[in-house]
Amino acid sequence: MSELTLTEIAKEAKNASLVLARLTSETKNAALEKMAEALESNIAVILEANEKDLEFSRKENLPQALIARLALTESKVRGMAAGIRSVAKLPDPVGDEQMAMEMDKGLELRRVSCPLGVIGAIFESRPDAVPQISSLCLKSGNAVILKGGSEAQHSNKQIVSLLSEAIGTVPGVTARAVQMIETRSEVAEMLRQDKYINLIVPRGSNAFVRYIQENTKIPVLGHSEGVCHAYIAEDADLDKAVALALDSKLQYPAACNAMETLLIDEKAASRILPRLAEEFKAKNVELLGCDKTRKICPEIKAAEEIDWDTEYTDAKLSIKVVAGLEEGIDHINLHGSGHTDLIVTEDPEQAERFMSEVDSASVMWNASTRFADGFRYGLGAEIGISTNKTHARGPVGLEGLVIYKYKLIGQGQTVAEYSGENGKKFQHKLLTVRKSD
Amino acid sequence: MSELTLTEIAKEAKNASLVLARLTSETKNAALEKMAEALESNIAVILEANEKDLEFSRKENLPQALIARLALTESKVRGMAAGIRSVAKLPDPVGDEQMAMEMDKGLELRRVSCPLGVIGAIFESRPDAVPQISSLCLKSGNAVILKGGSEAQHSNKQIVSLLSEAIGTVPGVTARAVQMIETRSEVAEMLRQDKYINLIVPRGSNAFVRYIQENTKIPVLGHSEGVCHAYIAEDADLDKAVALALDSKLQYPAACNAMETLLIDEKAASRILPRLAEEFKAKNVELLGCDKTRKICPEIKAAEEIDWDTEYTDAKLSIKVVAGLEEGIDHINLHGSGHTDLIVTEDPEQAERFMSEVDSASVMWNASTRFADGFRYGLGAEIGISTNKTHARGPVGLEGLVIYKYKLIGQGQTVAEYSGENGKKFQHKLLTVRKSD
Repeated sequence: MSELTLTEIAKEAKNASLVLARLTSETKNAALEKMAEALESNIAVILEANEKDLEFSRKENLPQALIARLALTESKVRGMAAGIRSVAKLPDPVGDEQMAMEMDKGLELRRVSCPLGVIGAIFESRPDAVPQISSLCLKSGNAVILKGGSEAQHSNKQIVSLLSEAIGTVPGVTARAVQMIETRSEVAEMLRQDKYINLIVPRGSNAFVRYIQENTKIPVLGHSEGVCHAYIAEDADLDKAVALALDSKLQYPAACNAMETLLIDEKAASRILPRLAEEFKAKNVELLGCDKTRKICPEIKAAEEIDWDTEYTDAKLSIKVVAGLEEGIDHINLHGSGHTDLIVTEDPEQAERFMSEVDSASVMWNASTRFADGFRYGLGAEIGISTNKTHARGPVGLEGLVIYKYKLIGQGQTVAEYSGENGKKFQHKLLTVRKSD
Repeated sequence: MSELTLTEIAKEAKNASLVLARLTSETKNAALEKMAEALESNIAVILEANEKDLEFSRKENLPQALIARLALTESKVRGMAAGIRSVAKLPDPVGDEQMAMEMDKGLELRRVSCPLGVIGAIFESRPDAVPQISSLCLKSGNAVILKGGSEAQHSNKQIVSLLSEAIGTVPGVTARAVQMIETRSEVAEMLRQDKYINLIVPRGSNAFVRYIQENTKIPVLGHSEGVCHAYIAEDADLDKAVALALDSKLQYPAACNAMETLLIDEKAASRILPRLAEEFKAKNVELLGCDKTRKICPEIKAAEEIDWDTEYTDAKLSIKVVAGLEEGIDHINLHGSGHTDLIVTEDPEQAERFMSEVDSASVMWNASTRFADGFRYGLGAEIGISTNKTHARGPVGLEGLVIYKYKLIGQGQTVAEYSGENGKKFQHKLLTVRKSD
């Protein structure tokens, strides 16, 4: 596989995608089952490859946390197989009729979902990303080119080889559905293949995703930043405000949907800030505040301008007192990253205004920012969280890997018949869409 | 307006977009009515500005066809106003609930359509594009920055100034909803404003659209090429094949959805090609054929390799005899532009295979390629035809100018409550979506 040039790999992927696009759900699920079985029957081989990566990582003194994420066990490999089987159980996103219309008698238009084509998936470390992304792409009828972190190279290569071989044993499917590249220079080349690759899905640090976004013309599904806010309204319930602020900041501070800045209506500040500051301090959260915040809680350190634009991904929080809802919304639209923002209020009118005017993928009313996640949203799987304004936004499930085509079914009609003053007229009658089974 | 830098214009547009996003349908329709009235009450002023453009064009000896498209009349201006009013009558694409789910008791998730934000519209000539694009953007709650052809500069400037002023008179709406830039250097700058501009909509020649696509990181809605095919199957009905081929090629040869290459199953070639060649010759269509085509119709000139990738947009057609459906599909997927392709057959199985395996935005079965158009598809308006694989594909109506956001409405729930073995469980119960009026 590594003897092909990147362009050849991309062409092979494109050809494979045309094969995958026409597979039935049954065939795709059969291939997914084969993939799961291949991992389960080759646990020793996978762990052996993983041991090579671990040895290298220890020798290079890579951080302990990275080595822990990298290390596979029998139970982790069985978990990968279970993950693939759960993808098989998801509804097939391909072939859904989204719209049906009788343009005229005997002239029917149907809009049907179909795969994007070729996905380029680039991720850092963690070999379990390989079966997860591969299975989501296969389920949605897309070919995928994977590039994992170099520390996981042996593990990834072994897993891809098993998955690809397993897929190839299913009649009508091609092993080229899942391919892998290994070097950084190949990534740079991959980002130039906009002729063959339809979507790049990056997973990794903000800086990593930003690098990808800035170096390709291929659409990128992802977010480079999660500067999320909570706004506490004048009338906010104290206990709710405290519980939501703590959860949004601390349930998993490294997550992209964790709160980074807390905004509070000045009319609620003296009532709520002292208790909040106390609770956060008890949890060892470092607080940085604006001048008004520090008038109420003088022990809080001063925030600088840059803090309002910073994603700490850590036990650190900036706090700003604002004049009211409007200033809060303006602050979020100016400094936020369009990811996830929360209002705490008992007033439906303020809540509705916040949710309508804050230009973010997820807007929460009295619910933690940490809920913004594909699994919690019930999407079944999460490809990623997108802060794009086109194609897919917010937590994205399998629907982010498909698009649609129009099928027009006629009986020989020409446009000339429908032209001019005496031409036939379109009816444009909506029909009930056909549900796939 | 022209005293602002491009970045300032883009920021103003972004601010305007936040205002537009929260307007009711009534307010937007009121603004559209004001826009229509402003044009109707200022016909003399518009024609005067247009006269300046015409004078310049005559002096520069610009092509007669261009001058004809540029020239406005009272009835054309009234047509613009009527066009704006018809956009007002379209359903509001914003605020549609697309999904509703009870994640758990008292924790409801709703996915609601919302505007993209800021649209950059770049088009060649034709002042009537200004009210059309402006009204579609306003209806969908987007701010727009327009750049028209320099030949129409005075007309465009006058129309934009009237529209923008009219919009500004409606309480709650901002005149900055519609802005215009005038120079080519501003276009280059505009293409770099990916921080503020969410979508570029180019209208013009293939080369023009390709230039835009290759010079921006902002998503582009459009197509640079329409290399469309008809495939005539072994069993095709002779009269249908002839009528569909003639219409697909000739109903409007300059259109992007006109056929450029005709593929025919070799088993049908001797039955159908001679009649086809005769009909095309009678209509003065220049034919270029492969070797097998020329064995049957020796008077046809030889096609070269480049012909299979060429969009003639003229009375010119390449013809290729293929071994059957598979070769036909492969040819289209290799040489086509993913725009619109047709199969002529009476066999539902071949038709279904063609429509499923041809990777194009529109696939037609016994209906002219010329039907691929927003108005014919009943979309009410056409923003453009897209050959993208993400966001919007094929003829795109107002739905191409919106995206969605998730609104999560809770009662103080934290993610911690739903974590761990004893955590609360999600229900993920789909609810009936609320229909907007």
